[in-house]
Amino acid sequence: MNKVKIIIAGPRGRMGSEAVKMVTNTEHFELKAVIDYKYEGHMLSDLEGFQAINNVPIFSNIETCLQNVECDVLIDLTTPEVGMHHAKTALLHNVRPVVGTTGFTKADLEELEGICKDKNLGCIIAPNFALGAVLMMKFSQMAAKYFNDVEIIELHHDKKLDAPSGTAVKTAEMISAVRESKQQGHPDEKETLSGARGAELDGMHIHSVRLPGLVAHQQVLFGSDGQTLSIRHDSYNRASFMSGVKIAVDTVMKQDLFVYGLENIIE
Amino acid sequence: MNKVKIIIAGPRGRMGSEAVKMVTNTEHFELKAVIDYKYEGHMLSDLEGFQAINNVPIFSNIETCLQNVECDVLIDLTTPEVGMHHAKTALLHNVRPVVGTTGFTKADLEELEGICKDKNLGCIIAPNFALGAVLMMKFSQMAAKYFNDVEIIELHHDKKLDAPSGTAVKTAEMISAVRESKQQGHPDEKETLSGARGAELDGMHIHSVRLPGLVAHQQVLFGSDGQTLSIRHDSYNRASFMSGVKIAVDTVMKQDLFVYGLENIIE
Amino acid sequence: MNKVKIIIAGPRGRMGSEAVKMVTNTEHFELKAVIDYKYEGHMLSDLEGFQAINNVPIFSNIETCLQNVECDVLIDLTTPEVGMHHAKTALLHNVRPVVGTTGFTKADLEELEGICKDKNLGCIIAPNFALGAVLMMKFSQMAAKYFNDVEIIELHHDKKLDAPSGTAVKTAEMISAVRESKQQGHPDEKETLSGARGAELDGMHIHSVRLPGLVAHQQVLFGSDGQTLSIRHDSYNRASFMSGVKIAVDTVMKQDLFVYGLENIIE
Amino acid sequence: MNKVKIIIAGPRGRMGSEAVKMVTNTEHFELKAVIDYKYEGHMLSDLEGFQAINNVPIFSNIETCLQNVECDVLIDLTTPEVGMHHAKTALLHNVRPVVGTTGFTKADLEELEGICKDKNLGCIIAPNFALGAVLMMKFSQMAAKYFNDVEIIELHHDKKLDAPSGTAVKTAEMISAVRESKQQGHPDEKETLSGARGAELDGMHIHSVRLPGLVAHQQVLFGSDGQTLSIRHDSYNRASFMSGVKIAVDTVMKQDLFVYGLENIIE
Repeated sequence: MNKVKIIIAGPRGRMGSEAVKMVTNTEHFELKAVIDYKYEGHMLSDLEGFQAINNVPIFSNIETCLQNVECDVLIDLTTPEVGMHHAKTALLHNVRPVVGTTGFTKADLEELEGICKDKNLGCIIAPNFALGAVLMMKFSQMAAKYFNDVEIIELHHDKKLDAPSGTAVKTAEMISAVRESKQQGHPDEKETLSGARGAELDGMHIHSVRLPGLVAHQQVLFGSDGQTLSIRHDSYNRASFMSGVKIAVDTVMKQDLFVYGLENIIE
Repeated sequence: MNKVKIIIAGPRGRMGSEAVKMVTNTEHFELKAVIDYKYEGHMLSDLEGFQAINNVPIFSNIETCLQNVECDVLIDLTTPEVGMHHAKTALLHNVRPVVGTTGFTKADLEELEGICKDKNLGCIIAPNFALGAVLMMKFSQMAAKYFNDVEIIELHHDKKLDAPSGTAVKTAEMISAVRESKQQGHPDEKETLSGARGAELDGMHIHSVRLPGLVAHQQVLFGSDGQTLSIRHDSYNRASFMSGVKIAVDTVMKQDLFVYGLENIIE
Repeated sequence: MNKVKIIIAGPRGRMGSEAVKMVTNTEHFELKAVIDYKYEGHMLSDLEGFQAINNVPIFSNIETCLQNVECDVLIDLTTPEVGMHHAKTALLHNVRPVVGTTGFTKADLEELEGICKDKNLGCIIAPNFALGAVLMMKFSQMAAKYFNDVEIIELHHDKKLDAPSGTAVKTAEMISAVRESKQQGHPDEKETLSGARGAELDGMHIHSVRLPGLVAHQQVLFGSDGQTLSIRHDSYNRASFMSGVKIAVDTVMKQDLFVYGLENIIE
Repeated sequence: MNKVKIIIAGPRGRMGSEAVKMVTNTEHFELKAVIDYKYEGHMLSDLEGFQAINNVPIFSNIETCLQNVECDVLIDLTTPEVGMHHAKTALLHNVRPVVGTTGFTKADLEELEGICKDKNLGCIIAPNFALGAVLMMKFSQMAAKYFNDVEIIELHHDKKLDAPSGTAVKTAEMISAVRESKQQGHPDEKETLSGARGAELDGMHIHSVRLPGLVAHQQVLFGSDGQTLSIRHDSYNRASFMSGVKIAVDTVMKQDLFVYGLENIIE
């Protein structure tokens, strides 16, 4: 099998440095170059933390990079503005983009989709590469068609400021889109201590646990007569995002389609 | 909405008596008659446990029943032999069968499928109506495409004789059908107490816990760098099968198809 | 070993009928008589559900019973008023009481304690015989001396009216009695959906989940840097109370002490 | 409150560097000096990773250190040989040792205990500072007096070579010491896949799960009629040991006793 030839933009960021590790540790991937606005002309091995990675040149400009380096996929882990420019340029050079960002506008997405169609090329834009979390949300949505009683418990370290977590709210919204609406719990239930029954979204209840020692966890619990079904994701560190990036790269090579959201490449 | 008119075969069995309860408690279902080889000519309310259920005649013979009672769906919870005869007869009378049995032969299934096509009628044969368990298996199979490290822990009461459970083996087989084959654990791992790493099926490990107090539980645990995903089903009693029967009835009314296995009606 | 000779008061109640089953199924226990205000002069085997239990006479009056039947322990599962009279009478006849009630007054308890001292006899009064729940509370209190961050998640069927559960509140109070007081979570945390962080008791958070299919469950979760410790009790049915009654009977035979609360016989 | 004045031996080790962090971040602790065989005469802030920690001199020799620095407690995280010498010397200088080591002989322990008695000083030797794990084992042993059906599930990353884990075996042994011996599971149970029922120790079953993404986790599950009780510890990183060290320091200041094993300071 030919290796997939890859360029990474943003190699020094927290996600980017994990991506460098993942690509160089994956048998059928090959890191050809990186794009970093600061270190034009250096080699990646010149930078702290990357000393062991040989033969990977750094470019500041994506055009220059693509003119000089033959590659299949661009992994972009920069910012929305830069990422948009990178994705468009990559497509025009017949390179397939895998972009991790939450910041693209609807117009951005439509423009990219148009170019993909014209060029008959794949492109994946993913606000969330945590594959386990994406599967948890997708399965929860599927289960909610059959179980319309559900509560969400999310658990995080006690440095987290907001409750509930964004993932919990997104899960509830995805469920709400397919679930027959229902006010859960006993109609006459009452809280003897206020807040006991948690937050509510479309009749579902959401509970936020905060403790030192915890990292990022969520359990979606469905119940019906005589049974419960639960789907739980535990995330311990940033490496967990990389399985999502890897699958996105493999998929973008096979599908000549524009895709927004990792959940849409899961069959 | 018109109510779905239902006949139940095998009302005194453990599943059958739950089905009577479920049908009579479901707003849009209507129990029209039952089939019981013993009590021809009686009313269901004559039998112990059913005193409160009015106006439901008992027939011993399905032909007589179908000639006398107008109905949409037959729920059959008898035996494979009787069930096959019932299902065929129902279809010939334009009644859609929902049959819970593990015992049909391949020839039986093909014969029923043929009649469904000719008559353009739906029919659902389900060896397992535990909807939560079916979803757990289906989600596990989906997750296994992305996470190829997985272990199964099943937990049952200590009266259970065989280990692992049939559901655990079936889950592992379903995973095995899609997962890239892998021998899990460290290649040099060793058991200082024999059996610690559990049973093995295609490189996956299966663990069987047996304790008084437990009923029937299974957890499928996937791991990859920095994250785990787990899917768990807890079954407490036979009522848990009834949500599966209910969904089968609703589906068989909408789909003019022959379906084998509840997992094939889940979208 | 001599068998412990036992009398049960209230054999037809929900707890009482389980106690009859437990005593007759326990090798070293022997059921000598029952006390039931209604069926004086009958045998227990005359009553529905007890046909198989031979040679157990029914008395309506405890005095008559104790004059006619030699016994070691009275298990009382009646009401607080009746239970108080039974317990006192038993002690005066040198029979050790094991009483399940939440309704005794402080004066009642002191009176019983006085008689125990005079007679040098054991007596156990237990508002809660769910041994697993009692252990969960005791361990939680012990752990709270070392981990002062803790949240409680209790999960019950959706027919339950009040939240949080009495057990959750009692657990929090027991923890509060030993824990260095602390307002948990980030000082600046904020709920974007009201109630997400649950109820609060002395700075601890309590979350109440309600779903069909659940029975009665509680998890106490402690966290500190890099670790969590959790203690969980799952109760599926009333039989779970009987291990507590059994231990109380064994203990009351060995300890010539008055004890209030099962947690005080656990070492 | 006077601060506890502390010396740490072995500050560059994995445990030692965490201890430096913990002591300097604890309000009522004060780090007075460190002992490191290599850097006599330097300051701790000269070493990589410790630049921000001011005014802490390094000594190679414990005698010199104790002659020059006034202190209350020695935290020793070196090796058994060095640790023994350090502990003895500390006691002779009226400094209380807290030593983390598994390697002391019985003779070593008796010698140290003797010195403690003579000097009326506290000393704590702990093979395991993971307080959560120690509590899990202690609670499991307590529960086993009342629940004699128990299974242990331990879950670790898939780089671990041996199964079951040392903690699982130690837990089973502690349970075995108090539990009425019992061969668990159905007497006629049989494995259709070999190993399904796990390893066995005194009739208890132990299951070892290995998956990438996992760190170090253990669940001890007790069952009896109608209920289960479970105690679970999740350890995510080395920082988790420091709460144990902290408690040992606080305890050694209050108790003028020789203690072996953290479980013996838990009340």
